[in-house]
Amino acid sequence: MSHPLTEFELIQQYFSDIGFGAGSSNAVVDLGVGDDCALLSIPPKKRLAVSMDTLLAGRHFPASAQADDIAQRALAVSVSDLAAMGAQPIGFTLALSIPSVDQSWLQKFSQGLRASADYYQIPLIGGDTTQGPLSLTIQVHGLVPQMSCLRRAGARPNDLVFVSGCLGDGAAALELLQNKPTISVAQQEYLLSRFYRPKARIALGQALLGLATAAIDISDGLLADLGHIARASAVGATINSDSLPVSEAAASVLSPDKLQRGALTGGDDYELCFTAGAEHRGKLAEIANKLNVPITAIGSIGVIGNNGVIGNSGVGDRVVCQDAQGNTLEVETAGYQHF
Amino acid sequence: MSHPLTEFELIQQYFSDIGFGAGSSNAVVDLGVGDDCALLSIPPKKRLAVSMDTLLAGRHFPASAQADDIAQRALAVSVSDLAAMGAQPIGFTLALSIPSVDQSWLQKFSQGLRASADYYQIPLIGGDTTQGPLSLTIQVHGLVPQMSCLRRAGARPNDLVFVSGCLGDGAAALELLQNKPTISVAQQEYLLSRFYRPKARIALGQALLGLATAAIDISDGLLADLGHIARASAVGATINSDSLPVSEAAASVLSPDKLQRGALTGGDDYELCFTAGAEHRGKLAEIANKLNVPITAIGSIGVIGNNGVIGNSGVGDRVVCQDAQGNTLEVETAGYQHF
Repeated sequence: MSHPLTEFELIQQYFSDIGFGAGSSNAVVDLGVGDDCALLSIPPKKRLAVSMDTLLAGRHFPASAQADDIAQRALAVSVSDLAAMGAQPIGFTLALSIPSVDQSWLQKFSQGLRASADYYQIPLIGGDTTQGPLSLTIQVHGLVPQMSCLRRAGARPNDLVFVSGCLGDGAAALELLQNKPTISVAQQEYLLSRFYRPKARIALGQALLGLATAAIDISDGLLADLGHIARASAVGATINSDSLPVSEAAASVLSPDKLQRGALTGGDDYELCFTAGAEHRGKLAEIANKLNVPITAIGSIGVIGNNGVIGNSGVGDRVVCQDAQGNTLEVETAGYQHF
Repeated sequence: MSHPLTEFELIQQYFSDIGFGAGSSNAVVDLGVGDDCALLSIPPKKRLAVSMDTLLAGRHFPASAQADDIAQRALAVSVSDLAAMGAQPIGFTLALSIPSVDQSWLQKFSQGLRASADYYQIPLIGGDTTQGPLSLTIQVHGLVPQMSCLRRAGARPNDLVFVSGCLGDGAAALELLQNKPTISVAQQEYLLSRFYRPKARIALGQALLGLATAAIDISDGLLADLGHIARASAVGATINSDSLPVSEAAASVLSPDKLQRGALTGGDDYELCFTAGAEHRGKLAEIANKLNVPITAIGSIGVIGNNGVIGNSGVGDRVVCQDAQGNTLEVETAGYQHF
């Protein structure tokens, strides 16, 4: 193309028909990209769940990252918030700011976005493109039943605390990206895939509806995010540092101390942390098996100011971390601070 | 406060309870800021309309602009897209990127945002805050009837073309901001208010449901935006350059030539451009009177390649601009190009 792309052409060429592939939820999208607004029909007995996230180059991903990786990571990070509510994805909007119109970059970005949108069956329904420093703001839209969804509030004393998948992979991937330790190609691929193409736990979130008493996705680090549950639920929590599920790849990149800290505070894992009554352990094992997602019990909920649940640093004194011998760990930082 | 604000504290302090004032539409917001997602209940027989816009400092507003002005402008620009669909506002999300936590700036920004959200009765239901170059991405959510809304497609040959309010104020305001011509304080205030606090035509949009055959808001300039209607409707349009409604303030800042160009291509006016059958002129005059919003007929819709509707520059050859003598004007640029 000899003339510079107009915004209209850019949208036509790179952002049309994304995620409208095999999805079954497209019935709700009455009007997508191309008018003043997109239009959605929300089915009866469903509520709309929405969440917005911004990722800035150099802050939330390396400025040198591949365009397809950036797109896939951004969408997964946003969809993860739908998973944490038990929502079914129905559509997303994208505000993309790019320094200039680089068509090979846009082509790759579009491919990554399409792959991820097809995976989650979530069509692109609208957005905005502007010229500026590289950043993406994505809003995801999902459906939850009128009468149930997973919230941060709802954890009760004596509930158990569970996490899906492995913790600390986000921290290990950052170590890999920054300091390039020597590990196997397979382990490198695993960690980079966990960082750039995390799999938001959509199916798990929906399976937990009616079972979990509270849930959140681990974006800021386990301690911080469990702290959000504890605060919203007006309870405390104790977690057993020796029970944290970690991957071999993460263990080969980080020392045991750093891995434990990564699992507790590293963030960027996009697993679900949730609470449920102990009577549901069997049912949770079935779900883990069926969805092929590990679910690990890592602690329990208590009353604040009772059974040891007090005095931790930085997360509102609500979350205590103990080793198997019952010794309380002092943990330096309480998750990612945005400022 | 002696320690730096956490994101949690920042949201609590500056972004809680915004727009939940006197609004009657709050019934749809089941859950606002503070969980993984916000939750909305869409009433039966309504559809959800959503639109996302990004404003970057230095590109969409002067980097030196006041924080409250920035907030009000950003929200009005976004709400204007709801107006163009005939939607009733129900909530918005905000992704705010700021270089640093400047509490006096945030305080002022929050005040402006609150004033505008109260005006449109549109509560803030979620978002994200990040540290980076100053920018705002806003997504607005509104309701339209299941069976009717205003779209870009729908204009028919022989429909008349109308605009609300005055055109060219956006261009005049930019001239004022950049070159500071000497005009009266009242005129300065009028133009700056039009730029920083444009009034999205929400009531007008809703009044046009069932009357207008197509509508758009004028953000990129009349020619470009009417071009969008013409393209989506597969028609052409002829506008009479002598009938464009302009304000005295704009005329005191811009030469007649520049004012005409501003009205045709300047953008940033956030008025509605719409088409309707000539038989509705009386009804439209009533609406204009009731809502105290001028509505001016500025042209008509034709078949493409017929009655002169061909051969204009840059807007897909779909929109022709003629003076009262029927001479076709050559217009240099076809609206704001984002790249």
